Amino acid sequence: MSLTVVGSIAFDSVRTPFGEREHMLGGTSVHFSLAARFFTEVRPVGPVGDDFGEAELELLAGRGVIVDDIERVPGGRSFFWRGRYEYDLNVAHTEDTQLGVFGDFEPKLSEAAKSADVLFLANIQPDLQRQVRAQCAGARFCALDSMNLWIDTAKDSLLAAIREVDCVIVNDAEIRQLTGESNLARAARAVMEMGPRAVVAKQGEYGAALFTEHGFFALPGFPLEEVRDPTGAGDSFAGGFLGYLDSQDGDLDDACLRRAMGYGTVLASFNVEEFGTERVARLTREEIDERFEALRDMTDFDVLPASAK
Amino acid sequence: MSLTVVGSIAFDSVRTPFGEREHMLGGTSVHFSLAARFFTEVRPVGPVGDDFGEAELELLAGRGVIVDDIERVPGGRSFFWRGRYEYDLNVAHTEDTQLGVFGDFEPKLSEAAKSADVLFLANIQPDLQRQVRAQCAGARFCALDSMNLWIDTAKDSLLAAIREVDCVIVNDAEIRQLTGESNLARAARAVMEMGPRAVVAKQGEYGAALFTEHGFFALPGFPLEEVRDPTGAGDSFAGGFLGYLDSQDGDLDDACLRRAMGYGTVLASFNVEEFGTERVARLTREEIDERFEALRDMTDFDVLPASAK
Repeated sequence: MSLTVVGSIAFDSVRTPFGEREHMLGGTSVHFSLAARFFTEVRPVGPVGDDFGEAELELLAGRGVIVDDIERVPGGRSFFWRGRYEYDLNVAHTEDTQLGVFGDFEPKLSEAAKSADVLFLANIQPDLQRQVRAQCAGARFCALDSMNLWIDTAKDSLLAAIREVDCVIVNDAEIRQLTGESNLARAARAVMEMGPRAVVAKQGEYGAALFTEHGFFALPGFPLEEVRDPTGAGDSFAGGFLGYLDSQDGDLDDACLRRAMGYGTVLASFNVEEFGTERVARLTREEIDERFEALRDMTDFDVLPASAK
Repeated sequence: MSLTVVGSIAFDSVRTPFGEREHMLGGTSVHFSLAARFFTEVRPVGPVGDDFGEAELELLAGRGVIVDDIERVPGGRSFFWRGRYEYDLNVAHTEDTQLGVFGDFEPKLSEAAKSADVLFLANIQPDLQRQVRAQCAGARFCALDSMNLWIDTAKDSLLAAIREVDCVIVNDAEIRQLTGESNLARAARAVMEMGPRAVVAKQGEYGAALFTEHGFFALPGFPLEEVRDPTGAGDSFAGGFLGYLDSQDGDLDDACLRRAMGYGTVLASFNVEEFGTERVARLTREEIDERFEALRDMTDFDVLPASAK
């Protein structure tokens, strides 16, 4: 049971209508790992600069994340993103991006990272995703994320990377763009015909949908009256989803994938309640399980919510 | 057990990337009634012109819809709408709207229509909705739809109408606009604080969400690889939803509302498979029940889809 994630470790400055924060630890691998650590041993791989200090290390290591594959690059600066969200939190504006040490990233995996049972290739250049995939040949389940940039600039590499994984986890707009197919069900089937056995379409506040050869499953976003910062929600989703899968023995069948969708949804929902990693950093397994059961009730035709029983 | 719907009976000319049709019978009351008739006695109220002939009457009456409250206005023309959809079927363009006899619509309800158990006030001017509501004082469940036009031009009337119904069924963007609240859960609560016990947020291809005092329920849109014409999907949803509710004895509790959401989703999904009323007009109850069970499986954490069993 071990999970390797390769992606950004970053600092984020974020402004939303509900507040702002400067230089919070963030990035895909951070949000992913803080979600996945509730289920399994998770190991983020990636470079950081001198601005990544003991406090940042402790935020991860102090919560059980294995930090051995975080590479400190002396004299470098960590990936930095500055963005703001409109009152409609679905609308984000990037104000600054500085790749820093991430611009020269060449994934170096320790033997422990290479021997992962489950692998998440976060949104990085597709040729790098393939390099990592090749180093983790023994993984029993491998998923990747991507973005419009790589569809525009490295589509052939991305298609090659997709052929080598079990699962694609991307926004629904990206699945449509990737396949040139506006119908989501057809777009998902087109992706599965490339090789993956599962496609997860992230749909923001509308939740997420799972397509497999056996059928379709969908969950709404967990309804929240307080949403303060959506940054990292998709990464927390992936962390809950793959963390849960890595914790399961035996076949990762559709029932297992569906429960993983539930944990992904729950972790994403906690992520957005506060800024950056604030909420997930102090989350407990009991809170996760409680919300998972609430989500199950919310999608069950026959079970009334507890308050109506 | 009887259901009255007050709204447009229209002719639609529609073009989508998958074909086009001229002057099909459409309008809210038509789509609604053809969906609701599977569950109950449904009675559309509204005016039509000389262009509404025997073929149109037969499309409704031949399928069990009670047509006694369809008022023929001699020398008049029926409501007409011409529109086209982009390849992304979520993007619609209205090319022509001619109100015809609908422009002078003053709802005249027969005694039978007034004594309805369930009432649907489709998207018409809110003062007219209130007039109808007052005439159907004995209805045990009353729902209304509305649109951005009325929020912009007759908001006070609309708010008064909302206070007098049990359920609001509108697009999620409209709930947000109506309440000035971008967070959907908060917006739905604000609507319920005006009076209604339930709010249904229609979310297009993402499905629909139900808010009640007891909790939250959501269903995805039924996944379809062939979608040809989304016109009337929301009306078919409302017809399935309210038709099912009218068919139920006893309290319309949350479990009942959830099943109604399922039937609404199923009817909407058939609606969009072909142009106008083509698919729903030849639909069978067996097909509805089969898809309802499929939808239930698609949202169940524990049940595998049949093909994986």
